[in-house]
Formats: sequence, structure tokens, C-alpha cells
Amino acid sequence: MSKFVYAFEEGSKELKNLLGGKGANLSEMTKIGLPVPPGFTLSTEACNEYYNKGKILWDDLKREIEDNMKKLESKAGKKFGSEKNPLLVSVRSGAAISMPGMMDTVLNLGLNDTTAEAIAKETGNERFTWDSYRRFIQMFSDVVMEIPKYKFEIAIDELKESKGYNLDVDMTAQDLKDLVSRFKSIYIKEIGKDFPEDPFEQLLQTILAVFDSWNNPRAIVYRELNDIPGDIGTGVNVQSMVFGNMGENSGTGVAFTRDPATGENSVYGEYLMNAQGEDVVAGIRTPHKIERLKDDLPEVYEEFLRICSLLEDHYKNMQDIEFTIEKGKLYILQTRNGKRTSSAAVQIAVDMVDEGLLTKEEAVLRVDPQSISQMLHKAFCEESLANAKPIAEGLPASPGAASGKVFFNSESIKLNKGGILVRLETSPEDIEGMHGSEGILTVRGGMTSHAAVVARGMGKCCVSGCSNIKINEEKKEMIVGDVVIKEGEYISLDGTTGKVYLGSIEKEEASLGGSFKKFMEWADDIRVMGVRANADTPEDSEVAVKFGAEGIGLCRTEHMFFEEKKIWPMREMIVAKTTYERERALDKLLPLQKEDFVGIFRVMGSKPVTVRLLDPPLHEFLPSKAEEIKRLADDMNLDFDELKQRVSSLHEFNPMLGHRGCRLAVTYPEIYEMQAKAIIGAAIKVRDEGIKVDPEIMIPLVGEVNELKYVKSKVVAAIEKLFEELGETIEYKLGTMIEVPRACLTSDEIAGEADFFSFGTNDLTQITFGFSRDDSPKFLGEYKSKEILPRDPFESVDTKGVGKLIKMSIELGQSVKKDIKLGVCGEHGGDPKSIEFFHSVGLNYVSCSPYRVPVARLAAAQAELKSRKK
Amino acid sequence: MSKFVYAFEEGSKELKNLLGGKGANLSEMTKIGLPVPPGFTLSTEACNEYYNKGKILWDDLKREIEDNMKKLESKAGKKFGSEKNPLLVSVRSGAAISMPGMMDTVLNLGLNDTTAEAIAKETGNERFTWDSYRRFIQMFSDVVMEIPKYKFEIAIDELKESKGYNLDVDMTAQDLKDLVSRFKSIYIKEIGKDFPEDPFEQLLQTILAVFDSWNNPRAIVYRELNDIPGDIGTGVNVQSMVFGNMGENSGTGVAFTRDPATGENSVYGEYLMNAQGEDVVAGIRTPHKIERLKDDLPEVYEEFLRICSLLEDHYKNMQDIEFTIEKGKLYILQTRNGKRTSSAAVQIAVDMVDEGLLTKEEAVLRVDPQSISQMLHKAFCEESLANAKPIAEGLPASPGAASGKVFFNSESIKLNKGGILVRLETSPEDIEGMHGSEGILTVRGGMTSHAAVVARGMGKCCVSGCSNIKINEEKKEMIVGDVVIKEGEYISLDGTTGKVYLGSIEKEEASLGGSFKKFMEWADDIRVMGVRANADTPEDSEVAVKFGAEGIGLCRTEHMFFEEKKIWPMREMIVAKTTYERERALDKLLPLQKEDFVGIFRVMGSKPVTVRLLDPPLHEFLPSKAEEIKRLADDMNLDFDELKQRVSSLHEFNPMLGHRGCRLAVTYPEIYEMQAKAIIGAAIKVRDEGIKVDPEIMIPLVGEVNELKYVKSKVVAAIEKLFEELGETIEYKLGTMIEVPRACLTSDEIAGEADFFSFGTNDLTQITFGFSRDDSPKFLGEYKSKEILPRDPFESVDTKGVGKLIKMSIELGQSVKKDIKLGVCGEHGGDPKSIEFFHSVGLNYVSCSPYRVPVARLAAAQAELKSRKK
Repeated sequence: MSKFVYAFEEGSKELKNLLGGKGANLSEMTKIGLPVPPGFTLSTEACNEYYNKGKILWDDLKREIEDNMKKLESKAGKKFGSEKNPLLVSVRSGAAISMPGMMDTVLNLGLNDTTAEAIAKETGNERFTWDSYRRFIQMFSDVVMEIPKYKFEIAIDELKESKGYNLDVDMTAQDLKDLVSRFKSIYIKEIGKDFPEDPFEQLLQTILAVFDSWNNPRAIVYRELNDIPGDIGTGVNVQSMVFGNMGENSGTGVAFTRDPATGENSVYGEYLMNAQGEDVVAGIRTPHKIERLKDDLPEVYEEFLRICSLLEDHYKNMQDIEFTIEKGKLYILQTRNGKRTSSAAVQIAVDMVDEGLLTKEEAVLRVDPQSISQMLHKAFCEESLANAKPIAEGLPASPGAASGKVFFNSESIKLNKGGILVRLETSPEDIEGMHGSEGILTVRGGMTSHAAVVARGMGKCCVSGCSNIKINEEKKEMIVGDVVIKEGEYISLDGTTGKVYLGSIEKEEASLGGSFKKFMEWADDIRVMGVRANADTPEDSEVAVKFGAEGIGLCRTEHMFFEEKKIWPMREMIVAKTTYERERALDKLLPLQKEDFVGIFRVMGSKPVTVRLLDPPLHEFLPSKAEEIKRLADDMNLDFDELKQRVSSLHEFNPMLGHRGCRLAVTYPEIYEMQAKAIIGAAIKVRDEGIKVDPEIMIPLVGEVNELKYVKSKVVAAIEKLFEELGETIEYKLGTMIEVPRACLTSDEIAGEADFFSFGTNDLTQITFGFSRDDSPKFLGEYKSKEILPRDPFESVDTKGVGKLIKMSIELGQSVKKDIKLGVCGEHGGDPKSIEFFHSVGLNYVSCSPYRVPVARLAAAQAELKSRKK
Repeated sequence: MSKFVYAFEEGSKELKNLLGGKGANLSEMTKIGLPVPPGFTLSTEACNEYYNKGKILWDDLKREIEDNMKKLESKAGKKFGSEKNPLLVSVRSGAAISMPGMMDTVLNLGLNDTTAEAIAKETGNERFTWDSYRRFIQMFSDVVMEIPKYKFEIAIDELKESKGYNLDVDMTAQDLKDLVSRFKSIYIKEIGKDFPEDPFEQLLQTILAVFDSWNNPRAIVYRELNDIPGDIGTGVNVQSMVFGNMGENSGTGVAFTRDPATGENSVYGEYLMNAQGEDVVAGIRTPHKIERLKDDLPEVYEEFLRICSLLEDHYKNMQDIEFTIEKGKLYILQTRNGKRTSSAAVQIAVDMVDEGLLTKEEAVLRVDPQSISQMLHKAFCEESLANAKPIAEGLPASPGAASGKVFFNSESIKLNKGGILVRLETSPEDIEGMHGSEGILTVRGGMTSHAAVVARGMGKCCVSGCSNIKINEEKKEMIVGDVVIKEGEYISLDGTTGKVYLGSIEKEEASLGGSFKKFMEWADDIRVMGVRANADTPEDSEVAVKFGAEGIGLCRTEHMFFEEKKIWPMREMIVAKTTYERERALDKLLPLQKEDFVGIFRVMGSKPVTVRLLDPPLHEFLPSKAEEIKRLADDMNLDFDELKQRVSSLHEFNPMLGHRGCRLAVTYPEIYEMQAKAIIGAAIKVRDEGIKVDPEIMIPLVGEVNELKYVKSKVVAAIEKLFEELGETIEYKLGTMIEVPRACLTSDEIAGEADFFSFGTNDLTQITFGFSRDDSPKFLGEYKSKEILPRDPFESVDTKGVGKLIKMSIELGQSVKKDIKLGVCGEHGGDPKSIEFFHSVGLNYVSCSPYRVPVARLAAAQAELKSRKK
């Protein structure tokens, strides 16, 4: 006879497929000697057999269940259905993979009129007893018998109304006892039979319901969408109930084995005597600190400390433990890795290495890379924050804390040298203002709006999409509800929560020394992939270096042109009608642009700096409103209508797929020629100051090798001419961004012309899916809720599609140039899941915004460790 | 000693690599016994040896040249540099692949003061002699010695001014003789030496210049861009000159071996006695019909007829021949396959099969598929056209001929049941008007504008981008120059030339019977790939069937919604705020849409009909101007501001990558549910009328299998429900368009859910390149002129990138579903080059606009024949 039922003592965490996830965990805790309330698991094979046999519980199985119930009774020292010390159990489903749509839990199974009386007597708590009983009937009726919930709710409402009660807690023990009778009547009316008094019948019917729920429509759809086979089945866990409210030597609590806020190595928790789990959470009674248990029940406290130590030894991790004390006996109901702040996570990891619990490698795997980004930003002091009142809440678009005077345009920020920039939405023209601000608040736009993306890049605090703010630009004020905030008044932003506060709040600096430094050094020792930053200014570059960037992987040149002194010659260049006029404007830009690069090279020194030549469509640099066009026309001595015509001729239906990137340089090579001269001129200047420099020139949006060939020939010729003029040369690399599907498909040809590939996964994702980043938020929400895509492909790289193209590109590229340098500079470069993928395909480095650099360093180390395991 | 020089007798057309293209052709003509002026070729190996030796002409080579000149003299019966009967030669370059940037031709080489006098005497034509001499000096100075051309032009201008001449032809023999002296002075001044009198020195210097031109910068860049190796070298052809103006028994002419207009099997040509080639072309003297040569020189005429027959036997094709008669001796200067009208091409191919010259297979390969599309449209009668005066010229956007009354909007076309629709540019709202019109004329937009694409789809004549027309919509008139054309006045359009005429012109119908029918039947017997049409209406479907379509590969449903009675419920549906409102609007659309399909199924009968569910973004159906929104708001009893807000919320930054295709159905599944019910309801209705039907439902823009799964589940459920309601069922297929790169990359998953793939190569090309079709014309011109892309990827499918994705998709799809049906429905489906590619990757069918169906049938047959050869 096959075995279908396993006592907790018989399993372990390795038997997840057989026992389901929940069953395996209960077994594991039992196995390592924790005082877990006893129980057993019907295996997933039992579920499959149930379907094979045409959905009936067969006799052998029933006998196995009975046998196990017998053993359970003896372990618990209680008896199922007995009028003295009766055993109550919980029944829970549990597949190897957790799955929505399945039946979840029935508690207090085994209650009937007899056992209820017995428990009332034993606990001396009538109200608790009858409340438990009526809840059991409700739960059983709903999840097992599928009687609509509202039928019971009506009965409760009627009772409360007749008594004049407002709240459920107003109901007395007698009320609840009456409710049990009413519920039973409802049950008879709906089912046509009495509510089952026989606990064993209750149990079998519940098991049957769990098995049936495996094939309910929601579970089937979920499995189909997630490619989970239908024949893996679910387990059923039957566990003895324990109660913390059985008198003054009973109790319940939760505790962490270490301080989850600071990581300090001492048990941290709370408990209440003579109470249920809900009581600790509900906050009606104030729980005690765990240390007081030493006075209440010294032996239990000692055992609890012993268990904490045992659990840390076993799981090698800080644990979050739920426990119950029933009549002086300690039970562990659940243990799991405890949630902690990011600084606690780092502290615990470092301490555990010092304690010999973990190796450095294990420690490095223990901290979620995502979480450490919060450690890098300024934060509000907790005390100051406690007194501050939030006035609005938007999206937490870019983390950090900021306080400052409110200004409604970039000019005012520049004039006042700082402040909070408040805008309906930002555009490229706001770059300078954003840079000079303490933080940015926008009314419109999501997590991937212009403001959000640029702010994250700058490491600037930003709250976006704060739609209940109204801005009156004329009056220079903003209105939130009935609060009016005028220009120059103070507000504070929390970019990690999305909250907006009135007034200024004290802040504290991030601490990057001590354990954090030690921890990150371990990560750096392990990782093989380089980490660079995306940085467009000397200031960004300094932050990048502070956070450990080993170079700049993406220096965008377009933002530079929005500065006051550069935007005019830039616009002259754009509206030029002849190559001569264009070159004249570019001549004005050349020295200015060169100075941009001088600053960056000085900061970065011998670290490589990849400069991307101009990428966005030219219309982004032109004004769009009539009055601004008028001003430009006047300033440039042009005819207004002609200029308007020129601006409108630059309009594009799909700018994402339009005249930009290297396509601009095919039409106007002189733009890239100027930029190349500025980069190389700056590199030579800084080199001549005695600083080693490593410039890399990157051509964007290449999709066909002839584009690169043509543009490269122009760029190289311009540089050669410069070398000749200066009488000196310098080494540089010239490569391309791979961000168009066709570039991936023809990477063998392209590699022949490029020293390096840098994958621009933002655009590559947009184009491979055909999802415009600006427009897709409209429908991606629906994609998420309907589980059409497992995750937002703009957050974590889509390995199936985009990733396949990247792999293909690498293989084709390396087939022609074995040692071609490979990096990534899209926002995915700072996303740990994506970093793992980039590591697996063999990229040399990732590049991300400066504030993500430590995240990427840790994620790269973890990726290396995971690949070693395989 | 290696051989580097080959007399024409020694070569053949197979030796193209050794002799270059031109040399091999001259040899071939000599080989088959044509009276070609004798000559020889310096091989491409000589060119390479020249570079190996450090750019000098070595002695052995010079000796070979001398030897061959000797032989040439004896063949020509003339002597190089002689004062009696002197030999003149032409020198031409000729690589295996023709290449811009290389030196082209030097004529009349061998002229000096001595030989010029001799020729003047012999021809009795002093003017011709000195004109030839001064041209030779100019040509030699320019292409061999690189003296700037303008220096000679100034001398000519000075001479003309001093004599008071306006035209070159005013110059007398003496003037030209003077010019020779002046040119020689310029030569001395520039070069510092006398102009070479020694003919052999002239020859060697010219050969040297041809070799040097192989490595001039333009040729090098061209080779790099086209991946032509640099070491294949160029040949040099030296050929004896012959003159048709050496007296009354000399002459020159051109002739076709068959009538190039009708294909009739009789020699067709013109000649002039005592004339040069230019004289025939220049039209100063009226040439004679070739038949008159029988009277002038009967023996020459007989020989000419014999040569025509010989050439057709040899080349198995109608030939275009240039000939010269020098002193009664016939010379053939060139023969090549003759250009012909498309109907002549078909006639000749069919005749040649009947004559036993060609097999059916060879005949089918002889007609350019592109060309036959002109045969399918109405054309203006030649006589009527001769009297018509064009008033403007735009782009030949869609072929055919149309006459009709001018109207400036679609309503007027509908009201008047026809006319020429004249618009600034068209938009989807004009579809009905375009359909009802005789032809379309637009002021803006290129060959791929909305008007052009839709008109070609409808087979409607269209002239687009006719920018010198001004439209005054208020006054209902158009102005071209000083011509004002009022609404209701007649104009005519020629969509094949782009010309616009005032008034009405008589037209003749296309003839699709006789030789055309026979020819197309041969093609159909050969081809293995099916040909379907893209058709959205019963009328289009009828045209498609007439042209031989075997089904509909793309029936777009969006155009249907622009009809007056459908656009209102459509707009109701779009602005609906709840699912209930949306379904109510869809209920109104259901019967209307069903009728659309009933009409199409009745026409198509048992042929498959693939209906694509709604694809474009919803904002395309809404008005954009304030006044129109106002009207919609009034009509629908909505608040204007709210509606305006709704319209503007549907605006997209990149609509191409926005909320459209199956993404709409993920958000609003009820739209596709309605369409599925309409299609299947119509299919059942027509089936019940006794007509077999074969419906296929196509889901657009799928990029992830879960999209298809979700949408399919909704569509299938709606159809199942319909089956239940009707109590009957029908077979149908459900497949998807593959038009997003990610769909290609994950085709294995998608194939599991699809009965067929239809490649939407329009969008796939846009997205793979990242080229918006609307915006890329701005820069694709530059791409063409700079030779960055070999051809417009929207005309012929890009096999390197897009084609690679298609191949990958097919392989992945077939790995899961071996017999999945594969087709293509982008505009490439009607392009012969693309059809060859689609054949090579194993597609089952192509689908194109009805008027391209015969083109596709022929191209598919040719693709099959070409693949048999391999």
C-alpha cells in the first residue's frame, strides 16, 4: 500500500514537491526540534490519486488519516471530539507553488456542541468559545460548502440591530451562542442537512474541498498563464490548534532574533499573557517587551532564547518568530527570515560573518540589493518627522529627503540658487532647474515620467504625479485642499514614501562607512562585472566616484545644450538653412562643449568615460509656444512665420522612431564632428595637465553598419584634423549603442566597425515590444492585473524577448571581434534581476545612475555567486 | 610571360572577371560573328599587376599593347598615327561590376595635327574633324590630365563672344580649328609640356589614367560601402573608331528586333545616312524607317536582318541594336536586351514560346513582374492624350487614369456619386470619399502617404504631393498658376506619370485576355506559393478575384467604421465610460459589421478570408478639431469639456507604439467579442445560403503569448456563446499577425496558440529598424544618396534584419507546430524582390492589394524557377 499521509516528523524542507511548501516547512521545524503543534500532511500524490479515482476519498486513505489522527491525539494529549480536553485542528492547503484561487484555511475544526462546552469550561472563556464556534461554522459553510457569505452576515446584522449594538465586540457570550444556533439553521436551509457534528466527517469534507479547489477555474487560469503543470497537485495540512488565552500561564507573541531596525544582536519582541494572536496586533492591550517574560515565566523565556539561537544556527539568518504559550508550554507556530531595514540587513550580515555563522560569500547574498539604495540618501530625522504633517501624497519617484522654498520655474531656482521645483510636469528645458533644486514635485506623470527618470539619474529627491495639488503659475502659488503655499514658502518632500509636508524638516546624512564599507568591499572582491555610472556633469561624476563607480558608461550630451549660454547657438544651429550657417553656430558651441568634458575628465581621471553623441530629435531643443517662437525669431533676426514653419516641419508623428541619433549625423555630420572635436580636445587638454584620461566616443541608434561606417568616417576625419592642428594625438575608443532590434540582428557586421557595444536597453525594450514608454502606462496596468506580463519590462529586462536579442548580438559580435567590450547603459543597469541576466550573458560592465551604483555592485557580486552555484 | 592583353576574338561573356563587363560583352559579340569594330582588352589582372609593380607600366605590357595595336591596324585596315587612312580608337574602363567614380571614356584617340588633316580630307568634313579634335583634347585634358574643365569652357565662351555667336553650332570649321590651337596653349600652360602628338603616348597615358582611377577616393568609398573587394581591378578596352559620316555610303542607326510597343515580330528602327549617332537622337534631321535601308543599301539591309535573327537566336531575347555603316560596311556597336512596354514583353514571351525559341519557364522569367501592373489599369487613349495639356505634376502615387469633376471633400463625392477628390492631404475619415471617387489628388504627402497607400490598396488612380496646387476650401476652388478650377469642373489624372490635365480625356480599358491570360496561366502552373489579396469590401474582393486572388489575406475592419452610419456608434463606444455603455454601442455596431462580412463572404465563396480584428488606436476615430468635437458632444448629449478631455486623454506621443491592436482588446475585450460574433454570424448566414465559406480570424500586434491567450479566450467564448444561441456551428481558424520583433523572438510560444501566422511586414519593418513610416522620408532620401541602405526597406523587405526575424519566427513556430500556415500581408506581399525572399523561407502565401495580384502571381512563379536553378 502506498503512503499518502506523513506526520510532520517524517518530512523535511527538501520534500516540497511531495508535501507542498507549507507541509515541508512545518516538517522542517519539527525536525530541528522546535515545539511545533503536532500534525500531519496529506501529500500532493494523494491529491492526484483523488482525481485518478474519479474524485472520491478511498478507504485506504481514510484509514491512513484515522491512524494519523490517533497519533496526533496522543502527541497533543487531547482527544478529537471528546467532551474532555478536546482536540481542535486547522486544515490548510499547500501546493509546491503558492497559487491564488485555492481554498486557504479552516480553523477550529472539531468544534461541536459537546467539545464547545468542554472548551468553555476549560478556558473559563465562554465568549471566546462561542465566537470560535460561530466562526468555524461560517468558515466551513463558506469554503467547504460554498454557502454565500452574506447569508451569515445578514444574521449578524439582524442580531446587532435587535440589540442596538454598533460593533461586533458588543456581542456577549450569550449572543454568540444564539448566533451558533441561527447559523446552524441557515446551514440546514441551504444544504438540506444538519451541520456535521461528527469531527471526523468535518475533517473529511474539508479535505475533499481542498482537493476540489485545486481545479477551480481561477486556479486553472492561473496555472495556464504561469505554465504550471496541472498534475503537480496540492497537499493538505492538518495541525493541532493551540490557544494562548487559556489562562494566566498562557500567552502569545512575536519576536525577532535580532533588532530589525539596527541589526543589534539581541532578541527583540513583544508578547501578551492570556491573549490570542490578534490581540497583540490589534493594539487594544499594550504588549510587553519580550525581556519581561523572564519575570513572568522564566523557564519559558530561557527555552525561547535557546530556540532563537537554534533557529539562527539552522537558518543562518535573523528569524521572525510567532509563538504561543498554552498552559505554560511554549509552541512555535511559525518562523521565517525576518524583515529588516537595509542598514540592519548589512549590520546583521557583517556580524554573522564575525560570529562565524556565515562566510563572506553567504553574507553578500543576504542583503537585497534593491534595499540598500535607501541607505544612500539623506533622510528626515525620525523625531522631526514625527511632528510633521503630510499635506499630500504622490508617487515615490526618486528616493531621498528634501526641504526648501517653493519655486514654480527653473529660472527662479537658478536665481535663488536652490529650492523645491514645483511643476505641472517637467520637460528637457527644466534640466538646469532640476539640477539646481533640492527636490522636484510634479502634478502629472508616473514613475517613468521625465521628472522621475531624470531625478533618479541625478539622485535628486522627486515626488511625481501628485494630482491633488493645483498650481497657479500667474499668482505663483500652489493649492492643496485649503492650504495655499506661495512662492518662497517652505515644503519638504520624502521621495521614498511620496509624501509632501508643509515647512522644513531636519535631515540626517547617509553613513557610508563602517559595516557598510566593509560589506561593499566584500561584494567588490567577489564580482567580476564592472560597474559604471550614467553621469552628464562633473557634479554627477563626483557622486558616482563616491559611490564606487569605475567609470562613466553613459555621458549624455543633450542635457548640456539646455544651459542658457548653449541653448541659443544650439537653436541657431537647428534653424540654420545652410551647412555654412550650421557650422558657424557649431563653432560657437565647440568651446562651451569642450569645457563640459574638461570638467568631467578631471573628476574621472584614468577611469573610462563613454560620451554619447547627440541623440534626441532636434525639435526637443526648440520652443513650441507661439510667444517663445516669436522671441527666438526676434533674437535671431528671423522671420516669425518662417521660423514657425521650420519648427512645425520638425514635428514628428512618432518621434521615438524618427529623425534622431546617428540619423541626425547622416543628415548633418557637422554636429558630430563638433562633438568629437570637443571630446578629444578636452581629453588632450586634461591629459596635458598630467591626468591620465580614457575617452570613449559612442554613436547612438545604429541599426545598419553603413550608418556607423559613414558617421565614423566623419568623426575620425574630424579628430585626425584636430590632431594635425594640435600636433599631438591621444588614444580613444569608438563604439556604438545597440538599441534597435536590427542592430542586434546584424551585430556581426557592426562589430567590425566598433570597439565596443553598449546596450541601450530602454530603447531596445520599447522597440522590441513596440511599447512607447510614454504611452504604455495606459495599458500596462491592465497587463499586470491580467497577468499578461510577469513584470514591467522597463523595470527588469525581458529576458525572453529583449534578452534573446542581446544574447544574439553578443554572439554575432564576438564571432567577428572576440574581445569586443560589452556594457549596458539603460536603466536596467541598476536593476538586480537584470544585472543577474547581464552577468549570465557575459557583459563586461553595467552602467546606472550614480545612486544605483552600490546596488549594482552588490547585485553583480550576487550574480557571480549564483552562477558559481550552477 | 603572362598574358595581360586579349583581342576581342579571344574572349567571351564568361570571362567577365578577367576582362571586365564591357570587355566580355565586346568579345561575345565578336565571337558570335557580329561585325564589331575590332579591338582588345587589357585584363583586370593587368590592373592588379600595375599596382603590384608600384604604379608603372612595365615593358612587357607595353610590348603586348604594341603587338595588339599592330593586329588591330591590320584588322581595321587603318594605321595608328598615319597620314593616310589613320586609325582612331576609343579607350574605356570596365570592371566586372560597374562602379561610379571611375574614369569612363576617351574617344577619337589618335588624333593629332597629321591625322586630323588626313581625316578632314577623307571625310570631306572639316567641321566634323576639327570639332572631334578639340573634343579629344578637352576629354584627354580633363579625364587623363585632370585639368579643370572650366578652363576650356572659358576659351569657348571667349571665342563665341568675340564672334557674336549664341550657340556652339554657330562655330565654323575654322573657328574649331582655332580652338584646337587655343586648347593646346592651355594644355602647355597647365602641364608645362606640349599636348602629346604621339598617338602611342596618348594611348599609354590614357591606360595609366584608367588604372589610377580604380583607386580614386569616390571609387574606394563606393567599394567599401558595397563590400566590393579592392583587388578585383578594372579592365581597359581599346577599340577602333568607326564613323557613319564618311559620305553617302556611310550611315548610323538604332533598331529593335521586334516592335517594342506591341511586341509584333518585325524589325523596328530608324537610321540616317552620312550621319553620326548624335544626329539620330538630336532630331535635327528626320531619320528614316529601317525598311528604307533596303532601297539605300540592299546588301547591308539583308546583312542587318540576318544579324537581327542571329542575335535573337543567341540571346533568346528581343535586342536593341546600335549600328554604323562606314563606307558601305556595317558595324554593330552595341546590342542589348531591348526595353519594351509591358504588353510587348508579354507578347514577345508568348510568341517566342510558339516559335520554339523559349520554353514556358524561360518565357515566364522574361517579363518583369513590376511592369505588368501598368497593364491592369485603365489608360488614356494615346490620341486624346496628345491633345491634352498637363497643368501640374505630382508624384505617380497609384497607377491608372481618371477623369472627373473636382470636389474638395468626401461628402461632396458621396453626394455626387463620383468625381476627383482633391485634398490637402487625406486622413482615415476620407476613406469613403476615396472609395467613391474616380481618382485622388493631394497637395501634400509622398509615395507612402496615407492617400498613396490607401489608393494603391483600392487600385484607385492617385497623384500625391502636387505642391504647386493651392486649394481654397471656402471658395471651393483650386488654383494652379493662373488657372482657377472650380468645384464641378473636369480634370484628369495620370497616376502612372503623376500628371494632371485640365478637362476630360478618353480612356481605354485594360485587356486581360489573349496572350496575357495564356502567360499568367503558365505562371500559375509553375508557382507553388499562393497569392491572396488585401481587401476590405465586397467591391475590392470582386477586383481581387478578377485578378486571380485565391483568397483574402488581410481584411481590415477599421475602414468599415468610417462609414456614416457606423462612425457614430463607434464614437459612442470609444467615449463610453462604463463597460455597459460600451456594450450598448457595440450592440448597435454588431448587425452593421455583420453585413460587411456577409457581402465579402458571398463574393469569396470557398476561398479563405482572413479578417483582422480592430487595429488602430481609438483616437483615429474621433474628431480632433474643436468644432467637430462640439458637434459630437451635441449629437451624443455629452458635456463638451468632458469630451474634449476624453479626446485629449487618448492622444499619444508615439501612436505607432501605443494603445492599439490586441492591446485594445486586453483593455476592452468586448470590442473583439463583437467583431468575432459579426464574422462568425456572417459566415454561418452565408453558409446557410448554400455557399461554402472559410473564415479566419486574425489578432493583430501580438508580442507576448499571454496577450494572444487572453484575447483568444474572450473571442472563443463569444463564438461558443453564439453557436449556442444559433444552435449551429461552423469551422474557423484563429491566428495572429506577426509584426512586432518580440513576436518573432517568441514564436515558439505563440505558435502553440495560433492556427496561422501572417507576417505584417509594414509594421515589422518600422519597428525592427525603429523607422516611423511617416517620419522617415525626412532622412531616408539622404540614406539613399549616401548609399547607406541599398533600397527603401518599405518597398523591398530588408532580408538582413527583418528577414532574419521572419526566418527565426518560422523556425520557432514550426518547431512547435510543424504545419502552421504562414503568410504575409504587408505591402511587401506585392513586391517581386520580397516575394522571392518569402518563397525562399517557405511561406504558404503572400497577400497584396488587388491590383498587385498578377504581379505577385508572376513573381511567385519566377521565385520558384530561380530556386529550381539553385
